[in-house]
Amino acid sequence: MMSVEATWHLLDAICPQRSGRRVPLDSACGCILLEDAVADADYPEFSRSAMDGYLIALADSREEYIVHGELTPGRPARAPEPGGAIRVFTGSAVPESGCRVVMQEDVVVIGNRMRLRSVSDEMHIRPRGSHARQGQVLVASGQELTPGRIALLASVGMHLPLVAEPVPVAHIVTGSELVHCADTPAPGAIRDSNSPLIHALLRRSGAHRKYHLHVEESVHTLVSALSLASAAEFILISGGASVGDHDHTRAALRESGYELLVEKINCRPGKPLVIAKKHDAIAIGLPGNPLSHFVCFHLFVRRLLARMHGTVPATLHRAKITEDIPANARESWLPCSLSWEDATTCATPLRCMDSSDITVLSQASALARVPSEGLASLETTDVLYLS
Amino acid sequence: MMSVEATWHLLDAICPQRSGRRVPLDSACGCILLEDAVADADYPEFSRSAMDGYLIALADSREEYIVHGELTPGRPARAPEPGGAIRVFTGSAVPESGCRVVMQEDVVVIGNRMRLRSVSDEMHIRPRGSHARQGQVLVASGQELTPGRIALLASVGMHLPLVAEPVPVAHIVTGSELVHCADTPAPGAIRDSNSPLIHALLRRSGAHRKYHLHVEESVHTLVSALSLASAAEFILISGGASVGDHDHTRAALRESGYELLVEKINCRPGKPLVIAKKHDAIAIGLPGNPLSHFVCFHLFVRRLLARMHGTVPATLHRAKITEDIPANARESWLPCSLSWEDATTCATPLRCMDSSDITVLSQASALARVPSEGLASLETTDVLYLS
Repeated sequence: MMSVEATWHLLDAICPQRSGRRVPLDSACGCILLEDAVADADYPEFSRSAMDGYLIALADSREEYIVHGELTPGRPARAPEPGGAIRVFTGSAVPESGCRVVMQEDVVVIGNRMRLRSVSDEMHIRPRGSHARQGQVLVASGQELTPGRIALLASVGMHLPLVAEPVPVAHIVTGSELVHCADTPAPGAIRDSNSPLIHALLRRSGAHRKYHLHVEESVHTLVSALSLASAAEFILISGGASVGDHDHTRAALRESGYELLVEKINCRPGKPLVIAKKHDAIAIGLPGNPLSHFVCFHLFVRRLLARMHGTVPATLHRAKITEDIPANARESWLPCSLSWEDATTCATPLRCMDSSDITVLSQASALARVPSEGLASLETTDVLYLS
Repeated sequence: MMSVEATWHLLDAICPQRSGRRVPLDSACGCILLEDAVADADYPEFSRSAMDGYLIALADSREEYIVHGELTPGRPARAPEPGGAIRVFTGSAVPESGCRVVMQEDVVVIGNRMRLRSVSDEMHIRPRGSHARQGQVLVASGQELTPGRIALLASVGMHLPLVAEPVPVAHIVTGSELVHCADTPAPGAIRDSNSPLIHALLRRSGAHRKYHLHVEESVHTLVSALSLASAAEFILISGGASVGDHDHTRAALRESGYELLVEKINCRPGKPLVIAKKHDAIAIGLPGNPLSHFVCFHLFVRRLLARMHGTVPATLHRAKITEDIPANARESWLPCSLSWEDATTCATPLRCMDSSDITVLSQASALARVPSEGLASLETTDVLYLS
């Protein structure tokens, strides 16, 4: 029985190298950048005025100046003549040295004459290169493109960044008792909630559900489904609720040429998780109940997809647990709601009737780790925020 | 000069009522639900076995039973005959009362005879309605559809939920010094980073950029742009960097029939923010520099869009500030990075050279509120997590 940590290390190790693609910046938000974003020039690219005012020579120490025209933003810089001043605006390009800007609040202007009212040491110039030097890495490869990073890429002209290609995923659902969520279940049947759950979780993880197959629970049909799904790089198999379904998954994976790397995990829920590999394709078999799906996706599948997309997995945070949790033979990861006492994060486990009770999924915002020895109320523990 | 809090109240008050649309569940992740998700039946809909094992009558207290067939998941329930047992599996429908399940680990089976090895009080049945009763609200209107809530909706057959329609937004950018991010700026010009920033922020907020117009800075062109954008319900105007641009925005809004509700906010950055209204259309004019764009979008635009989408604005969290911050005439909202000391959140303000320095946007994960009297190191303060 493999520990959760050992399973993470294994997933990190088996993750295949994948290629990227270039996308327009307007489609890149949320993608993982697969190259460094480097300043293509000094930023600001030119020294510019930080204020609306008048540009004068540093060497000029007179009180009154003749105003010779203006420098609107977007025009090339020029230096004032001796004794002269140039009207400038916030953002106007100014010479790289030898000048300063006096704020319009600090001068009196009559006709073309500008007179200083007060003297300040402030240059009111944003010097070339003061934000970033040419060649400086602004966003490192492997980071998610947040709106702020998108703005940075735009400012250095990276309009077609190289980003991770969404991992193509096949989702195979087994279980003859399952009907589509738009259908009314016959007596004894239930609606398939795992397929919409996995579809949504895959989208949140930047992956792309390429195939979705609902098959009977038998080794034969599973082998056929695995063959149909062979163009996917990652295959997720949702077991049914009946006995032996995991054996079907195991048997079908073996028959299809997969090597079984993990067959049991020391984790509650999720003990009978299967991880298998065939060349660069990875398959994970999830226990059929929706709570196991939910927890195992966040603990293991999200991590694998993060690695496959070229980024680091989500950080574990820490939170105070708000109640005693008894010991258990296995380490548990409990859906919990988060609250805050000033700057301290608190985690309250949500009441589940059993592992098929998904009403808790509505309020869950994190998974709290409970070691096998249990937790006392107010102890801090690891929490994984939900994506 | 309006306070940040008063501006929030104003935005909440002027937000128009909007209609929703029905979307397939596979497209609903991240949307705001505009109706209650209600259990259409008891859940589980039928009492079912929690284990693989044998179904026997509660009244039957014998040690040995004759096995009469099996109940696979998906088949209607039936009760065992007196002295008889039925093979059942996890998820098999069982009668609503009068029966219990003995685990297969607790019996010995030879041929069609099943003998109890140990006696347990456990029923191993998940009773009908133990997760949710018919009519119970499982997800309330106004909540974001997370993957867990998608699974819940699927389980109760809500395959076409009513969700908020993305707010159609017009983004008008002014500034002749701006070139598209794919172009090389001529001397004195700079790349437009505000347009990709706003586009990405709008997407993260569930809105839809319907129009994008880049115009010269003049009242005349702005009035024309406002007229072209009149089909949008929300208009965002990015000012240029030159003097009088906010006056252009104000004048153009007035000339186009807008009522100016806010012209100055007691907030740094973002003081010259403009909020205007014309019937159900709302316009916000943002100060031109990228840092103001970033901060004002998160503080005000995100809040307005959340209300327009029918949901509650993002909660303010609390964090310990990691350094002294001096007093200032205005309340400040500083981009900061977050870190954790066990369960305590800490916020470290990021160094900005000036308000046009967007290199900090790469590391920012929250905005920290600094009241005008400043903050001492380790004081806790409000933080707004970035979306």
